[in-house]
Amino acid sequence: MVKIGLIGCGAIAHTHVSNLVNHLKGEEITEVFDVVPQAAKDLIKEYQLNAHLSESVDALVNSNNVDVVMVCSRNDTHVEPILAAIQAHKYVFTEKPLATTAAACKKIIAAEVAAGQRFVQVGFMRRYDPAYQELKATIDQGLIGAPLMGYCRHFMTVPPTSYFKTENTINDSFIHESDIIHWLFKDDYASVQVQFPRPNSLNPAAELKDPQIVTVKMKQGAIVNVYLNQNSHYGYEVRCQVIGEKGIAQLPEVNRLDLHADRKIYHDVDYDWSNRFVEAYQRELQDFIDHANRQEALTGPTAWDGYIATVTSDCAIQSQKNEAVVPIELPERPELYQTKE
Amino acid sequence: MVKIGLIGCGAIAHTHVSNLVNHLKGEEITEVFDVVPQAAKDLIKEYQLNAHLSESVDALVNSNNVDVVMVCSRNDTHVEPILAAIQAHKYVFTEKPLATTAAACKKIIAAEVAAGQRFVQVGFMRRYDPAYQELKATIDQGLIGAPLMGYCRHFMTVPPTSYFKTENTINDSFIHESDIIHWLFKDDYASVQVQFPRPNSLNPAAELKDPQIVTVKMKQGAIVNVYLNQNSHYGYEVRCQVIGEKGIAQLPEVNRLDLHADRKIYHDVDYDWSNRFVEAYQRELQDFIDHANRQEALTGPTAWDGYIATVTSDCAIQSQKNEAVVPIELPERPELYQTKE
Amino acid sequence: MVKIGLIGCGAIAHTHVSNLVNHLKGEEITEVFDVVPQAAKDLIKEYQLNAHLSESVDALVNSNNVDVVMVCSRNDTHVEPILAAIQAHKYVFTEKPLATTAAACKKIIAAEVAAGQRFVQVGFMRRYDPAYQELKATIDQGLIGAPLMGYCRHFMTVPPTSYFKTENTINDSFIHESDIIHWLFKDDYASVQVQFPRPNSLNPAAELKDPQIVTVKMKQGAIVNVYLNQNSHYGYEVRCQVIGEKGIAQLPEVNRLDLHADRKIYHDVDYDWSNRFVEAYQRELQDFIDHANRQEALTGPTAWDGYIATVTSDCAIQSQKNEAVVPIELPERPELYQTKE
Amino acid sequence: MVKIGLIGCGAIAHTHVSNLVNHLKGEEITEVFDVVPQAAKDLIKEYQLNAHLSESVDALVNSNNVDVVMVCSRNDTHVEPILAAIQAHKYVFTEKPLATTAAACKKIIAAEVAAGQRFVQVGFMRRYDPAYQELKATIDQGLIGAPLMGYCRHFMTVPPTSYFKTENTINDSFIHESDIIHWLFKDDYASVQVQFPRPNSLNPAAELKDPQIVTVKMKQGAIVNVYLNQNSHYGYEVRCQVIGEKGIAQLPEVNRLDLHADRKIYHDVDYDWSNRFVEAYQRELQDFIDHANRQEALTGPTAWDGYIATVTSDCAIQSQKNEAVVPIELPERPELYQTKE
Repeated sequence: MVKIGLIGCGAIAHTHVSNLVNHLKGEEITEVFDVVPQAAKDLIKEYQLNAHLSESVDALVNSNNVDVVMVCSRNDTHVEPILAAIQAHKYVFTEKPLATTAAACKKIIAAEVAAGQRFVQVGFMRRYDPAYQELKATIDQGLIGAPLMGYCRHFMTVPPTSYFKTENTINDSFIHESDIIHWLFKDDYASVQVQFPRPNSLNPAAELKDPQIVTVKMKQGAIVNVYLNQNSHYGYEVRCQVIGEKGIAQLPEVNRLDLHADRKIYHDVDYDWSNRFVEAYQRELQDFIDHANRQEALTGPTAWDGYIATVTSDCAIQSQKNEAVVPIELPERPELYQTKE
Repeated sequence: MVKIGLIGCGAIAHTHVSNLVNHLKGEEITEVFDVVPQAAKDLIKEYQLNAHLSESVDALVNSNNVDVVMVCSRNDTHVEPILAAIQAHKYVFTEKPLATTAAACKKIIAAEVAAGQRFVQVGFMRRYDPAYQELKATIDQGLIGAPLMGYCRHFMTVPPTSYFKTENTINDSFIHESDIIHWLFKDDYASVQVQFPRPNSLNPAAELKDPQIVTVKMKQGAIVNVYLNQNSHYGYEVRCQVIGEKGIAQLPEVNRLDLHADRKIYHDVDYDWSNRFVEAYQRELQDFIDHANRQEALTGPTAWDGYIATVTSDCAIQSQKNEAVVPIELPERPELYQTKE
Repeated sequence: MVKIGLIGCGAIAHTHVSNLVNHLKGEEITEVFDVVPQAAKDLIKEYQLNAHLSESVDALVNSNNVDVVMVCSRNDTHVEPILAAIQAHKYVFTEKPLATTAAACKKIIAAEVAAGQRFVQVGFMRRYDPAYQELKATIDQGLIGAPLMGYCRHFMTVPPTSYFKTENTINDSFIHESDIIHWLFKDDYASVQVQFPRPNSLNPAAELKDPQIVTVKMKQGAIVNVYLNQNSHYGYEVRCQVIGEKGIAQLPEVNRLDLHADRKIYHDVDYDWSNRFVEAYQRELQDFIDHANRQEALTGPTAWDGYIATVTSDCAIQSQKNEAVVPIELPERPELYQTKE
Repeated sequence: MVKIGLIGCGAIAHTHVSNLVNHLKGEEITEVFDVVPQAAKDLIKEYQLNAHLSESVDALVNSNNVDVVMVCSRNDTHVEPILAAIQAHKYVFTEKPLATTAAACKKIIAAEVAAGQRFVQVGFMRRYDPAYQELKATIDQGLIGAPLMGYCRHFMTVPPTSYFKTENTINDSFIHESDIIHWLFKDDYASVQVQFPRPNSLNPAAELKDPQIVTVKMKQGAIVNVYLNQNSHYGYEVRCQVIGEKGIAQLPEVNRLDLHADRKIYHDVDYDWSNRFVEAYQRELQDFIDHANRQEALTGPTAWDGYIATVTSDCAIQSQKNEAVVPIELPERPELYQTKE
């Protein structure tokens, strides 16, 4: 029964705590911290947690009452608790991004390398989605040969106001593809380019350029085009198609009731992401807890994966300025992160 | 260039003549007859045919200006021209049904058997539909093993007034399945039963019992359920699924544009049969003409096939009275019709 | 935290206990009984349960250490613990069937009616399958109008030896449809008929007649054909199509990776049931536990539902003898079971 | 009955002549020319044409026995007969490309403009494919809003030796998309770029770089990525997806029999293009003939469309050298070609 210290009590924390309370096994939330103490109190009350209110990140991480740390606080505050957890030799699950700057990511990596062990799991939950896992397994088994090209769509029905900023399409949407693509293709990125197609006249946000196409090129030459669209209007959809030397593997359409009515054969499309990755969110956290309980080495997304995503997003945002191809350069991958999935 | 004598100038004649004029090759319509001469004149004018108006069925069939006969007249008038054509040793294409009574069908068969040759092709156009042909070929190749069960749907959007009669669902809709099923399963019918499920409250016709389920059982035991629905409301659809010893083969949904819109992934459904079998109508007639031009033995649906359909429909209509299982008994298949498809 | 007393430690008990231990919340297994005590000991050990070994069904049901009872023992032993649980006013989850005879089912119903409250939930897990639930909701919302006809397929790849008996196709396969169909159609059965199509020559079991078609007719006239096939050879598949007055709703194909390879566009099919209803098994039990914890009235499948299934199966097995239509007669539904879903 | 003079008797001529002889109406081939007279003689003999062997392109085009001209000769010989036909005020159907150089295309356009009338139809047969036409109609009706992005796949199973050259992927495959995309998007190209993803190790041709991604950008900003793959290994496939402001429209998978067998649900994929566009080839030529017979203004692909395709291909081939973005510049569209589809 692993004891969790939770940092940050916003929306994503609620998603995770709801899963912990209602679906996941082998853990209890024992300490909670938020910079706004009332948010922590409210969360404890809402889920009737038998948890203590911590006074600081440091106190929480180093509490004897905490075995592992969960970081759900604001994006730019992830580094401190992660570094503290590594120092305390405690497993830490952090929401994406690992950190908002490449420099911060490198600090975390240096700390893990120095400790000679992985402590960090980053919340790229798509890797735990059954459909993505089947896609990954199929490629790894060689059924389509080496992957050469890819085509992804990441479409929202309409943009929430929190997406009314061109950068956020990269930071909040594309970041998932930036993790998934190198995981599926087993290669590093060589460059990234963002292009803005004809703008959508139905886009309600003047400050949001939409849609966008991100083209990533990998070291061995594979090219993947990611179509990002905050204004699809027809629904929420995440698709991924990988074209290999002898075949294609792709995520299926989401499984919904087949209907014949109104002169159509159809199925409904999700309105937003809330249904699509329910299982993935549960499975990523259960996996983290199980590894903690068994004191096994973590196998989920690593700090290095988090670093790749942050660097790739930075380069994509840089490309947004002039649609240029931006090379992606990373230092050599440390021994600690060599083990392939 | 085969010379066609056309008998009957109603709706189905217009369909065929339009195909002959606009799409088919190797023929010309040289003589036309209708009991209402004006109908024949109008048809000649509409399609600008270089054709002569015949004064009688007999004159037309025996005209030196006619190589083959096409029978598109009222259902109960098919026998006379067919028998005349057989006597004149001319190929005759007749719309379904071959004849409206089993006795009349037997006369035609006796005439062909006496002549020692097939002259008749019955207009079961579905056998020329590419999708049905692929289904047939797949079964014949053994890909699904011996066929054991079947499930068909024959759905109209709403019934035209000409269907406002319970019998007509058999005579005009089921007759197609009554031909297709034994063709696909390569077996004779043992019995047929009609059942009336819960009636559709949206059915506009008090005198039409709708929907209906026809269950046919074959000599070797295969069972096929045919769901007939004149009030589907969602659209026109003809489906056929054959379950064999090691697999299933089925007609695909009709090929239509895939759309993502209005929170749905969908494609449209036909409103009526007018689009579904366009190609089949053209191909059945071209095949008849080609055989005539090459003076080859006919390979399309035979008089015996027409006889089976008429007998099976009769039994189905008998079953409509009390939903009883009605055995289907046929005399031995003459040598002339032994050659399989 | 509800305390569960478990009766019966065979295969299905392992499935449930594995779910309880690894996925479900709000319960602990406190007492275990099996007629073969070693089986109970082995199960306790395998799942490291902190549970006590009961000496009898009676001791278990009436233990202070038990809040609710789970019955996973042999089919013909369900009655005793269920009656005991009702008497003790404890909720009891029983695997299907409720009981193996109609008489025994009636005893259970009488006990519940006498107690004036539902205590029993029967393990018809399909009602908790998300796809079936979407199907049910769609019908209930009126999207396809009143349901008139249905078509179901329940196909196994090859029969396990435990299915080498013609009755078992009813008792183990059809029993699921016998529950689902009246739930979806909201009507009672009028009759049932089993027919045996042409036998499958690849069927390894001489004593198993396969395939079978069960036709159920409902009081308001709806007809549903259930195709049961223990020898599909292509894979395991459960499909259900409901045809209403203005549309069709059907379970989609199971969501699997789309592949283009080897000159095919395809997805794989399950080999057996083990993957298909994983979520349904978890959700039915979680629902039972949640109701127990909240001390709310049960809303899952009732004893009356179990009674319907047993009677319907009996009639179907009777029909297997001569393929006759067997009427289904039930006493009036007691007030206690009137509340519709 | 329009009289056709045919120039060039190679493979594509055989396709067209076979269609003319077996399927199309309202024409006869009266004159035939090939630089290798034996090829013309062989073709006349094979199809039993009642046609005269012409001695030169000029003689053929200006023969009183010729109403319209069909150009099926080598790509670099199209210009002469087209110009001659325009001068003779005869309709001319030419296989793609209109001409192999932009300069030659401009000559043709100048001749038509001078004549004040269109005489040329270019053989971009995809515009006559029913699926593409439904796609076009759907966009034009506004069902998906203004088109913003596109994604096309043009995949061959394995490259024939005639494709063992990197340029030919542009000249023989991409040329179809270069015509279709501006037709669908109703806009002119701004630029084109070719990129070479990771090479396919199963590609048999060292001199063929494969696969390729062509990115076209349109004046109003729409971006379309065309994935060209001569080595798909799984089959021949042409797909096109258009993403608009409020929805997506895409060509469906080709309609093939649905099969459940061998643990798969699947349908077969074509091996090569021979089946996919059969109907389109017939319809484009029938349309040309019908316009000639009715002496109506041509509505098929224009000389200007041919010019766009040649210029776009030239730019794409230039881009192949260094993967650069190559701007596409065209003179102003003459009045004659203004009428939108």
